[in-house]
Amino acid sequence: MFMPRKRVAILGATGYGGSELLRFLLFHPGVTVARLTSRQHPGVPVHEVHPNLLKVTDLKFENLSPEEAAEGVDMVFSALPHGASQDSVRRLPERVKAIDLSGDFRLKDAAVYRDAYGHEHNAPELLGHFVYGLTEFNRRAIAQARRVANPGCFATGALLALLPLAHAGALEGAVTVAGVTGSSGSGAEAKPGTHHPERAAAFRAYKPLVHQHLPEIAQELARAGAPEARISFVPHSAPMVRGIHITAVLHPAEPLSLDTIRSIYASHYGEEKFVRLRPQPPDVAVVAGSNFADVHCHGDGRALVVLVALDNLVKGMVGQAIQNMNLMLGFPEATGLEFPGTRP
Amino acid sequence: MFMPRKRVAILGATGYGGSELLRFLLFHPGVTVARLTSRQHPGVPVHEVHPNLLKVTDLKFENLSPEEAAEGVDMVFSALPHGASQDSVRRLPERVKAIDLSGDFRLKDAAVYRDAYGHEHNAPELLGHFVYGLTEFNRRAIAQARRVANPGCFATGALLALLPLAHAGALEGAVTVAGVTGSSGSGAEAKPGTHHPERAAAFRAYKPLVHQHLPEIAQELARAGAPEARISFVPHSAPMVRGIHITAVLHPAEPLSLDTIRSIYASHYGEEKFVRLRPQPPDVAVVAGSNFADVHCHGDGRALVVLVALDNLVKGMVGQAIQNMNLMLGFPEATGLEFPGTRP
Amino acid sequence: MFMPRKRVAILGATGYGGSELLRFLLFHPGVTVARLTSRQHPGVPVHEVHPNLLKVTDLKFENLSPEEAAEGVDMVFSALPHGASQDSVRRLPERVKAIDLSGDFRLKDAAVYRDAYGHEHNAPELLGHFVYGLTEFNRRAIAQARRVANPGCFATGALLALLPLAHAGALEGAVTVAGVTGSSGSGAEAKPGTHHPERAAAFRAYKPLVHQHLPEIAQELARAGAPEARISFVPHSAPMVRGIHITAVLHPAEPLSLDTIRSIYASHYGEEKFVRLRPQPPDVAVVAGSNFADVHCHGDGRALVVLVALDNLVKGMVGQAIQNMNLMLGFPEATGLEFPGTRP
Amino acid sequence: MFMPRKRVAILGATGYGGSELLRFLLFHPGVTVARLTSRQHPGVPVHEVHPNLLKVTDLKFENLSPEEAAEGVDMVFSALPHGASQDSVRRLPERVKAIDLSGDFRLKDAAVYRDAYGHEHNAPELLGHFVYGLTEFNRRAIAQARRVANPGCFATGALLALLPLAHAGALEGAVTVAGVTGSSGSGAEAKPGTHHPERAAAFRAYKPLVHQHLPEIAQELARAGAPEARISFVPHSAPMVRGIHITAVLHPAEPLSLDTIRSIYASHYGEEKFVRLRPQPPDVAVVAGSNFADVHCHGDGRALVVLVALDNLVKGMVGQAIQNMNLMLGFPEATGLEFPGTRP
Repeated sequence: MFMPRKRVAILGATGYGGSELLRFLLFHPGVTVARLTSRQHPGVPVHEVHPNLLKVTDLKFENLSPEEAAEGVDMVFSALPHGASQDSVRRLPERVKAIDLSGDFRLKDAAVYRDAYGHEHNAPELLGHFVYGLTEFNRRAIAQARRVANPGCFATGALLALLPLAHAGALEGAVTVAGVTGSSGSGAEAKPGTHHPERAAAFRAYKPLVHQHLPEIAQELARAGAPEARISFVPHSAPMVRGIHITAVLHPAEPLSLDTIRSIYASHYGEEKFVRLRPQPPDVAVVAGSNFADVHCHGDGRALVVLVALDNLVKGMVGQAIQNMNLMLGFPEATGLEFPGTRP
Repeated sequence: MFMPRKRVAILGATGYGGSELLRFLLFHPGVTVARLTSRQHPGVPVHEVHPNLLKVTDLKFENLSPEEAAEGVDMVFSALPHGASQDSVRRLPERVKAIDLSGDFRLKDAAVYRDAYGHEHNAPELLGHFVYGLTEFNRRAIAQARRVANPGCFATGALLALLPLAHAGALEGAVTVAGVTGSSGSGAEAKPGTHHPERAAAFRAYKPLVHQHLPEIAQELARAGAPEARISFVPHSAPMVRGIHITAVLHPAEPLSLDTIRSIYASHYGEEKFVRLRPQPPDVAVVAGSNFADVHCHGDGRALVVLVALDNLVKGMVGQAIQNMNLMLGFPEATGLEFPGTRP
Repeated sequence: MFMPRKRVAILGATGYGGSELLRFLLFHPGVTVARLTSRQHPGVPVHEVHPNLLKVTDLKFENLSPEEAAEGVDMVFSALPHGASQDSVRRLPERVKAIDLSGDFRLKDAAVYRDAYGHEHNAPELLGHFVYGLTEFNRRAIAQARRVANPGCFATGALLALLPLAHAGALEGAVTVAGVTGSSGSGAEAKPGTHHPERAAAFRAYKPLVHQHLPEIAQELARAGAPEARISFVPHSAPMVRGIHITAVLHPAEPLSLDTIRSIYASHYGEEKFVRLRPQPPDVAVVAGSNFADVHCHGDGRALVVLVALDNLVKGMVGQAIQNMNLMLGFPEATGLEFPGTRP
Repeated sequence: MFMPRKRVAILGATGYGGSELLRFLLFHPGVTVARLTSRQHPGVPVHEVHPNLLKVTDLKFENLSPEEAAEGVDMVFSALPHGASQDSVRRLPERVKAIDLSGDFRLKDAAVYRDAYGHEHNAPELLGHFVYGLTEFNRRAIAQARRVANPGCFATGALLALLPLAHAGALEGAVTVAGVTGSSGSGAEAKPGTHHPERAAAFRAYKPLVHQHLPEIAQELARAGAPEARISFVPHSAPMVRGIHITAVLHPAEPLSLDTIRSIYASHYGEEKFVRLRPQPPDVAVVAGSNFADVHCHGDGRALVVLVALDNLVKGMVGQAIQNMNLMLGFPEATGLEFPGTRP
């Protein structure tokens, strides 16, 4: 790497998105973290909020406007919450590239956005300017984009499960998707649903059939040639910290052989760095902390099961965002992301 | 309770089935635990194997034949493992009533048994003599039975989810059932799949479409008038100790209104002591330690979702067995089982 | 039980103290729960706050003054928070018996209270009227008391570890007490320290040497004849829901033989129902959910180690309170509390 | 890094030591992993045993003698179990450098070894040839060593807590050390003590006063000038996967001021990369996955408390081994180890 380092800024860097971006970007050989914004903690050293970063960085949070944060940087990540992000991202100068980690710019249709998130979009005119950042399927568009909307964690898992079938014209009829998330998906703020005494041994569904990632999944399946696919999505909370697990079950009218199914997935993922086809069902513990998504398919001639495991904060969020950054800034796609998970 | 206490024996009382049977039976107002068998620990005080029972009982394990164990008792529970149980249970005298907690006598068809469990049944002639012990749906037959095959934990959950629809004639087409179990379902012996370092943050599917509880579910749905229901069952392991969670998703050709669905479930469970209809998705943490199964239904006019949470060792095993014992011995069905779970 | 049931009321019944009191009292053969107060949830059915109690009770919370709550009842439990409890408890009529679960009336000296809790006591004149409710050591006084201050969870564990030595005149010099608590000790409200993503794999000390239970421990040791004992207490948070674990380490000037130590403990606990001497180190998992406290001693001729495990919400709080209630209302001490913990 | 990569081999690479060595060494810029030995899994691709390494390495395990494994390599790590390691390590050619992760060569005195591990040492003549690999305190000797005995995880924590005091001449009298470990410290093989159903909510002491790391701690404290320090060490198991937590409590005859204490620790650790002094008690969750050890001191004029948190498999094992390797092979000490832990 003899070229000068690119400079990046992070808006809203005190949450888990900020924490994970820093964990990767501070060791990325091609970038320098130039600025971190926080309204709540201006002037505070990063390690006071992210204690894992003591002796790792001397950066401090700053209370900056989006315009100020973007000054002189090449890339801005917005790790602001849904709803708040759109107000900041719209103010970023056209010149600077940006990746939004929130749900604000994933949907192309402002009406669909309103139904999913329960309020009007403040910058509907920008929705068309964002490329959906599912790296493995949108690589070329992302590489040329100035604005990327990073996918939701459940959507990443569900789309990695279903897009190969959609592209193969094999996604039809009713598809059941059971999703499971770890508690870190709820963010860094303490809430009743993540209160340790009540979460530590809990397993429960929430928002059955109405989760806000569903329209995002439907939109991308439609773009891949499966506009008729009807997804019944039931998300669940499990008592682990990290992980998205997807169990997709289909009952195709014309059953595919297991060989056919596996060759469809192999053609998409065989050469991928970060998507791994496994001979056994994947485990979120095996991908935790890493940018890998593990996939397994099984069928019995009648039903077809696709299983995906990934880390919600990495492949489902920050790792995928850095894959996208690498493409947008001209680095090899896997730069800074190759570390595996741990055993145990 | 002025009648003399009934006497019960437990075969294979050193595992979690034995532990849980003792937790309830030692405080049951109508029975006395007369004998506990164990080949491995003859002469050992119960509390050396089940340390929670120190100062609770002075019983010891004995190495007894089934015939010896049954002598002078009114009820025998077999908590022996699948495969081993049938050899002991067949030797019990006709006179004594028996409840088998294993999978050995749940299936009516020896060929189905062989396919599910991978070996021939040793006492196929007895299969027809067992009543399937799903209390809420087989109450009358259980009350008159001398032999009860206690349902599997996943089967209990799946059947509580689906039987109301089957009886209503509304169970048709492909049904997806995602099941989730805690680690105690694997039993008391240490195994790689329950090694704490690798299980504590794990979520993974196993045996997709081929779990041995599936034929049990299909058999009982057929008996309830839904022989055509095709269940795609995917079990998962979650990092909690106790709990079965069932997510059943259907796409009926003629959608039922949410009101219709809820009235179907209310007609079955409204008056039940141990099945609770909830206005929100149920949580395994809320039923852990108790004999309650919590149920919630949701539909959007296209898909129908039924959610069930129960404790695999209680309602999914020992608690249901004691419900059955109560019926078989003439006690009020809820005797000794009314304690709720804890919060937290 | 042919005598009429006694009537009890609970002030502040929406937290974990309330939840656990109800779990035991609703099945206690000698009492009826007459009233539950809550400012926040008046008119709300209990099971909406404590979902484990659906189909178990139809009680509702009421917004009542202490005087109203006490009307016609025999016993009032205050499960109100520290600081708030004293204002309510002081208003209870002399006629009604009361057990305070908070820290408000444990200390005899208002100046010590102020130092420990950081604010002045509002009813210092009442401090002398409360009996310290450590059942095994204050049984007779409790049985005659109208007011009992229930011990803190850490204090219960530390005192069960150290009081036998104090009474034997063997507690001298510096004593190190490392305490460990589960997350339920922080109460039912979501807080940063119990946010599941950050607590699920955490182990950390807090308030080293300055925890508010320390003066309570010192006061009771002094009463037992060890006013010179100097306790260095370091509490820790562990990633479990329930449990207090105490590791007390002493270095007596004149070492006691292991036989002497064990006979000291046997003389205190050998006949106790709820304190169990174990030949091996105790485990909080084994006592969770139960009123048992497990104790183990070990010495090497130089150092003496005493280990205690109990459930912070039961023996460390509500279970001990009900032991005390049983004594105060004339029931056998173990009534309603004999259920063991579970395995697993 | 323009010099040719150094070649390393790992003996016994299928356990957690092997897994963690690979996680770091495969990304170390100065070394190549040349060989991995396993008797059990010869010819098996690494990712079949360590599933996190799929698509990360194509290495396979080989059944090689120590001599074969050492051929043409610069450094051998032995991750073999205690007892077995000495037989392999003694056969390594003098030419190759070696770091032993087991307990086999930490103690200088064969009699002390026998007492601690319960069997005779097979190569007592080699004990004097090993440098004790506590990097921060033995840096110079390690850099010149051909053989390093890597410290035990508890010993690392206890020595980081106590050595500054020993060097300052302030370690005297009875010192209580309460240690806490996560379940990964028990290794990769399933055992009753790490069976998930019984470990998931467990907290318990084990081997009070007699843990095998104690003589290792005493030996190093003596070398640092505190031969009279008497350590009472009580280890505990906690329900987390990773982490060592040390709580050391002293009662110096002449109390040190908090300022003095902190300046002692600052003089040792202020400039250290991997030891971080914290203003608050450290948390194992914050260091998990990383090579950092976090330290906090507190005193009240009578008692002195030193708290240490580290990851048992990294700073307590493999990370420290790689620090040592870096010194022995001439790399900057922190090479390949700088990644922080995660939040959450």
